[in-house]
Amino acid sequence: MQVAIVLYPGVTALDAVGPYEVLRLMPDTELRFVGHSPGPLMTDAGILTLGVTHTFASTPAPDLLLVPGSERGTQAAMADPVLRQWLIEAHQTTRWTTSVCSGALILGAAGLLKGVDATTHWLVQDALPHFGARSCPAERVVHQGRIATAAGVSAGIDLALWLAGEIHGREVAEAIQLMIEYDPRPPFDSGHLSKASEPVVALARAAFTER
Amino acid sequence: MQVAIVLYPGVTALDAVGPYEVLRLMPDTELRFVGHSPGPLMTDAGILTLGVTHTFASTPAPDLLLVPGSERGTQAAMADPVLRQWLIEAHQTTRWTTSVCSGALILGAAGLLKGVDATTHWLVQDALPHFGARSCPAERVVHQGRIATAAGVSAGIDLALWLAGEIHGREVAEAIQLMIEYDPRPPFDSGHLSKASEPVVALARAAFTER
Repeated sequence: MQVAIVLYPGVTALDAVGPYEVLRLMPDTELRFVGHSPGPLMTDAGILTLGVTHTFASTPAPDLLLVPGSERGTQAAMADPVLRQWLIEAHQTTRWTTSVCSGALILGAAGLLKGVDATTHWLVQDALPHFGARSCPAERVVHQGRIATAAGVSAGIDLALWLAGEIHGREVAEAIQLMIEYDPRPPFDSGHLSKASEPVVALARAAFTER
Repeated sequence: MQVAIVLYPGVTALDAVGPYEVLRLMPDTELRFVGHSPGPLMTDAGILTLGVTHTFASTPAPDLLLVPGSERGTQAAMADPVLRQWLIEAHQTTRWTTSVCSGALILGAAGLLKGVDATTHWLVQDALPHFGARSCPAERVVHQGRIATAAGVSAGIDLALWLAGEIHGREVAEAIQLMIEYDPRPPFDSGHLSKASEPVVALARAAFTER
């Protein structure tokens, strides 16, 4: 199957690279990073480039498309007419249309989340209803029909493993989990808004505002 | 502080990008991707490029250095005299010298793991004693003195959060965990060799052999 991960200026690297590292290990998979033009593209912090491999135009019908989020490039991506049109057309024939983090808002801007249960980064959960989606902030991965959305940044790994299981069955997905040794043991337990203390939430909000 | 993440041909993208996404969010941090020459560099699967930002020569004394692993580029990196010499010299003044996945073998080849407890990807754990290290396959993150090593691929995220806590305290590290919404909920539980079934381990081994 063909997997297309969208890249755009200011994308958050881990939103794309987490799912990539899982999905590329699926058998019989051709994975592409699609964008306006091939070559390196700057991610959100202005440090790391990721390389686009194929144009939107040369990738009209991926089987699985994934839109990563961004700390500061989401608005521009939502307003990009070429990306929006590509999403609308590609979605017609995908087996899975998916997003990580604020990538859900980009799917929403293309009109793909109407009447759909969805999730996104906790900081922008409230934006989902504007696109006709029902916000599911307690879920890490939400799927309804062919659309699957993940919570912020690192949630793309869980989304991709779930997709690998749906596509190739549990045993293959478990082998991929073992290959990337995904046996998470975070040293703290503040990864969800419901678990973080008030000072920690305030610190995270302030960091986003400053950036 | 200055953080230097090493890039070399065939590096595994998530080994580098997982820790990057955490460490870049630390306050007062300058993060670099260091390599032989600035510009895009191909990762292990021949699909994704990551961009080197600075040369080894221009980054002689990082406070924190991190060496990611690779599916197929580890041997060449271990044999690279420029990288090895840079590691030996940079390590003299680091606050933390760290690795993810088979990056530990690259630290080992530079002679930095003698008498040190360490870990690496499960597939190459047995190589650690060749470098004088004591293999700790049950641990996800191992630290002794200034050296901290992580297990395979995704373990770099746990390593980086732990480092953020050591460097900036628990509250800052928890805020970073919340920013990247790292509240892992893998759909399966086969991420460690001790948890995966025999057929899953066989499948993962075969996939590595085929690649």
